[in-house]
Amino acid sequence: MKTRDKILLASLELFNERGERNVTTNHIAAHLAISPGNLYYHFRNKSDIIYEIFLEYEKLVDFYLDIPGSRALTLEDLTFYLESVFDGLWSYRFFHRDLEYLLDSDPRLRRDYREFTNRCLGAIRQIFEKMAEAGIIEHQPVELREAMSLNVWLVITNWMAFLKTAHALDDDNSLTLTELKQGIYQVLTLEVPYLTPAYRERVMALREKYRPVMMQAEA
Amino acid sequence: MKTRDKILLASLELFNERGERNVTTNHIAAHLAISPGNLYYHFRNKSDIIYEIFLEYEKLVDFYLDIPGSRALTLEDLTFYLESVFDGLWSYRFFHRDLEYLLDSDPRLRRDYREFTNRCLGAIRQIFEKMAEAGIIEHQPVELREAMSLNVWLVITNWMAFLKTAHALDDDNSLTLTELKQGIYQVLTLEVPYLTPAYRERVMALREKYRPVMMQAEA
Repeated sequence: MKTRDKILLASLELFNERGERNVTTNHIAAHLAISPGNLYYHFRNKSDIIYEIFLEYEKLVDFYLDIPGSRALTLEDLTFYLESVFDGLWSYRFFHRDLEYLLDSDPRLRRDYREFTNRCLGAIRQIFEKMAEAGIIEHQPVELREAMSLNVWLVITNWMAFLKTAHALDDDNSLTLTELKQGIYQVLTLEVPYLTPAYRERVMALREKYRPVMMQAEA
Repeated sequence: MKTRDKILLASLELFNERGERNVTTNHIAAHLAISPGNLYYHFRNKSDIIYEIFLEYEKLVDFYLDIPGSRALTLEDLTFYLESVFDGLWSYRFFHRDLEYLLDSDPRLRRDYREFTNRCLGAIRQIFEKMAEAGIIEHQPVELREAMSLNVWLVITNWMAFLKTAHALDDDNSLTLTELKQGIYQVLTLEVPYLTPAYRERVMALREKYRPVMMQAEA
């Protein structure tokens, strides 16, 4: 692996483990046993590393959410989209944690993240459209579909923060991918009232697989 | 006004304007033209100030969400709850911005915020119940109501971050209370499929009042 790629990988690991705010370029260099000078040869500063990591995240999500236009959408597709989005959130979890601060610190990132959000919202709308075409959910007026897509986005991007704050875990590392994916239960909750009789039972069974365990313990 | 209250008020103002991370106790003292020693006489450190501000926020929201048990819930009540919650978010907007970091820094706050979230979720569930009793929405199975209440919470607590990141405003101060309250449109979107014929038109008209203007500009 090239030094540049090693730096990106080590940075991502450290950011996810300790939070971006607590990791300096010196920590990253020390972790890789390279000199700070060598790191600076590849990246001018931490912002540049974060920006490169964002570009990879963006590429991954764009790849996942490339909706096939040619054939009908299946429940397997829907499961794949949901699983993939939460896998992405997990792999780049430091990012949403400190998003506002990161965007304030880097105008490129701010502009790109805005476009990224709009593309994601577009993909979610398209998935809803294709679910309606496939007879999984009822057709909805455009205005409602837009607002619902935004709610899907708000639920997805807030789920991790909810787990980490409302459930008051002692440290970030105690959060697991399984818990994170329980957010799929909340996303499918948004679709419950729109399910067609033909698909209702199957989608409800899919949703049940993700029921948050922590919520039950809570209640 | 007592010095202690002046410190709390000035801190809240500065945190909201500049972000908690960018404000030190020295800034707060300078802003009030008091000595750092005088500030430390009242509060040991910034964490203590933040904790006191949280207690006020909590008291405010608890007061707003004190649901009357004795009479039927009206649309005016619902509007009041929604408006009040977003007013609270606005007045204490620094808090949700950096929530994870704040909770990591103060175990008291972490514990109290967890209990606060659970009380809010309880209040949302109760509002849904009373809306069903009043015939505004259809009755729902408990499991669905719980999941919906959590989605309401996720949408409310993520709306400001969405405005500030996805819309890529240049600075925090360009966000207005009016824009923030457009989150009510998203919250009412969650209730749309459950509205009874008797109330449908009135709730849709209420929702329309909050339709996000930025989303239209975006599209």
